[in-house]
Amino acid sequence: IESRLPHVGTTIFTVMSRLAQECGAINLSQGFPDFNADDLLFERVAHWMRAGHNQYAPMAGTAALRAAIAAKVETLYGTAYDVEREITVTAGATQALFTAVTACVRAGDEVIVFEPVYDSYVPAIEPAGGKVVRMRLAAPDYRPDWDAVAAAIGPRTRMIMINTPHNPTATVWTRDDLDRLAALVRGTGIVVVADEVYEHIVFDGAAHASCAAHPELAQRSFVVSSFGKTYHITGWKVGYVLAPRELMAEFRKVHQFNVFTVNTPVQLALADYMADASRHLGLAAFYQAKRDFFRAALAASRFELLPSHGTYFQLARYAAISDLDDAAFCEHLTRNVGVAAIPVSAFFADGRDEHVIRFCFAKNEATLAAACAKLVAL
Amino acid sequence: IESRLPHVGTTIFTVMSRLAQECGAINLSQGFPDFNADDLLFERVAHWMRAGHNQYAPMAGTAALRAAIAAKVETLYGTAYDVEREITVTAGATQALFTAVTACVRAGDEVIVFEPVYDSYVPAIEPAGGKVVRMRLAAPDYRPDWDAVAAAIGPRTRMIMINTPHNPTATVWTRDDLDRLAALVRGTGIVVVADEVYEHIVFDGAAHASCAAHPELAQRSFVVSSFGKTYHITGWKVGYVLAPRELMAEFRKVHQFNVFTVNTPVQLALADYMADASRHLGLAAFYQAKRDFFRAALAASRFELLPSHGTYFQLARYAAISDLDDAAFCEHLTRNVGVAAIPVSAFFADGRDEHVIRFCFAKNEATLAAACAKLVAL
Ligand SMILES: CSCCC(=O)C(=O)O
Ligand SMILES: CSCCC(=O)C(=O)O
Repeated sequence: IESRLPHVGTTIFTVMSRLAQECGAINLSQGFPDFNADDLLFERVAHWMRAGHNQYAPMAGTAALRAAIAAKVETLYGTAYDVEREITVTAGATQALFTAVTACVRAGDEVIVFEPVYDSYVPAIEPAGGKVVRMRLAAPDYRPDWDAVAAAIGPRTRMIMINTPHNPTATVWTRDDLDRLAALVRGTGIVVVADEVYEHIVFDGAAHASCAAHPELAQRSFVVSSFGKTYHITGWKVGYVLAPRELMAEFRKVHQFNVFTVNTPVQLALADYMADASRHLGLAAFYQAKRDFFRAALAASRFELLPSHGTYFQLARYAAISDLDDAAFCEHLTRNVGVAAIPVSAFFADGRDEHVIRFCFAKNEATLAAACAKLVAL
Repeated sequence: IESRLPHVGTTIFTVMSRLAQECGAINLSQGFPDFNADDLLFERVAHWMRAGHNQYAPMAGTAALRAAIAAKVETLYGTAYDVEREITVTAGATQALFTAVTACVRAGDEVIVFEPVYDSYVPAIEPAGGKVVRMRLAAPDYRPDWDAVAAAIGPRTRMIMINTPHNPTATVWTRDDLDRLAALVRGTGIVVVADEVYEHIVFDGAAHASCAAHPELAQRSFVVSSFGKTYHITGWKVGYVLAPRELMAEFRKVHQFNVFTVNTPVQLALADYMADASRHLGLAAFYQAKRDFFRAALAASRFELLPSHGTYFQLARYAAISDLDDAAFCEHLTRNVGVAAIPVSAFFADGRDEHVIRFCFAKNEATLAAACAKLVAL
């Protein structure tokens, strides 16, 4: 059987989590918490299951969850998305990204992405026949180069995919970045896909600049978020997408024949849970404390810590520790040191190694302390 | 914004369920039970949530659920699928079908489907650039015409999608059908996708002929099933796919970047629940009783009932009642009679109207009785 996707391997997150488990290493690779979510959330799921809400939800999501999302987004970003036509609940943010690309990109269309790029973007573009155009976010500050983007935009440009707060670099784009982007796409048919799954994890008092809050960009953007990151339930696989109605109509054409709809009792439970805004508003302080703890614990190490302005990730340069390339170094760390991390080369098409690795600090302090004890000894 | 999928509308199941709700009609359209699933299943989900299993499952599914699936399949169909490499848990059967098509079909490839065809198949093929080749399942018996299939197979044929027990016709294909199919694809690179989501709902003592039980076809087939249909939890959106390892490797290349993985506590609960085989083995008798009840209650009506050999659907001809086309008749039934059904024309590309509609009898007897009282009066 001839492969239709000969260049696609297994996602780095599966590879590293599997290796971590095999080696009994502390897993700071794949991004997920090692503490449990709130009992109340479980209680609500159990309630809705027992109450008999176990059949298909409406294709776009339950009315209650869409209403709760609309209320949150309007409060935070000032934009009123229509509950019926402009909000769709998805089987995680990844499915939202894949579906938006599949709905909009056809053979020969160009899609601009920023490298290092989250590993699901390019494999969503290629099956649709799209051509990937890569922009660099260059170390050490990983800022977008808007002049380079301007030069890359052409008549075949169909979509620009952005991600803020940014995984893996832990940078946060500014309102000014969005203004630059808006100016570049003005008057074109270019669609923006904004992966904002870490929207509630922005540190040091900075505000998340959402495309949903940018009136001009909101008119042409899919804005994607995730309950997994926000409520510590990455394994429940529920996210959502916001888009103006014309774009959402296209999205739903694919969504309905991809996953059709999402777990009903979970949606109903999330709607209940969202009622208390402190649950998402408190997230930044919660993770900032973990970031600070982790960085302090690594201060004595020979890792060079890059800034972490958002997400639950921390980049670290290890040039003072090892000459191995980052993939080999992560394997070494996992097998021999007992701490798993993600090589940032996995986010580059050409596997470019900059001797930088990514740690996830969405962990209990005991876990972080145990990992740091090993890392400081290097 | 120019549509990439100009011909795709909203799925008929969403349209009719929405209309049923607006009209307060008894909803025998979209296929789902109106009774609740087993409390034990809810108890197991609650258990795994509280026990802290709320983060990403392995990409292919939890080991426990894959093992339970392998055991069931080997018991029923005699084929030992490898737990690591040949079984993947999906966000429902629809996602499995979409993903299999996306993984295998490229621009210009031909995919053979049988009409009436479930409404998600063609919209999965077209975004991949595939060309749909339609075979007729002709009334009144809706049998496949294998000579016509033989004539339709050519060098561009990449995939054949089959469905047994068949939705909407409620027919069941035989081992002889599978032998004919196997003979036609022998020596070619054609992949079979077998949608067997109603595998446990076959009536009158007949056995389900699974591609998983056909040694030759199993070597080239994606076999898709659904927990939603089997355990009365259509809203949980969990299914699975079996395939030989080379095919499954291709499937997972797409799966990992489409939904990545599926709700963890739900998977763990399903693994527990599968341990008692009577739960799926009892399903045929359970639905046969409903079929018999429904047919008996409609015997006094002017509907002509076609045979229902499997699934939880019943086709009915209404030529003696109305001259309306089937879409208009279903709308009339929903608005004016108070019973929603699905027009079979929705399963034909050309909207062919044969004055046949589909009822779902996965309902409490009281629901069926109330609906039949209205239908008998016509
Ligand atoms: C889909 S598994 C990866 C989770 C994640 O987003 C990350 O680790 O970057
Ligand atoms: C995906 S909603 C439709 C459910 C179903 O399979 C049917 O009604 O045929």
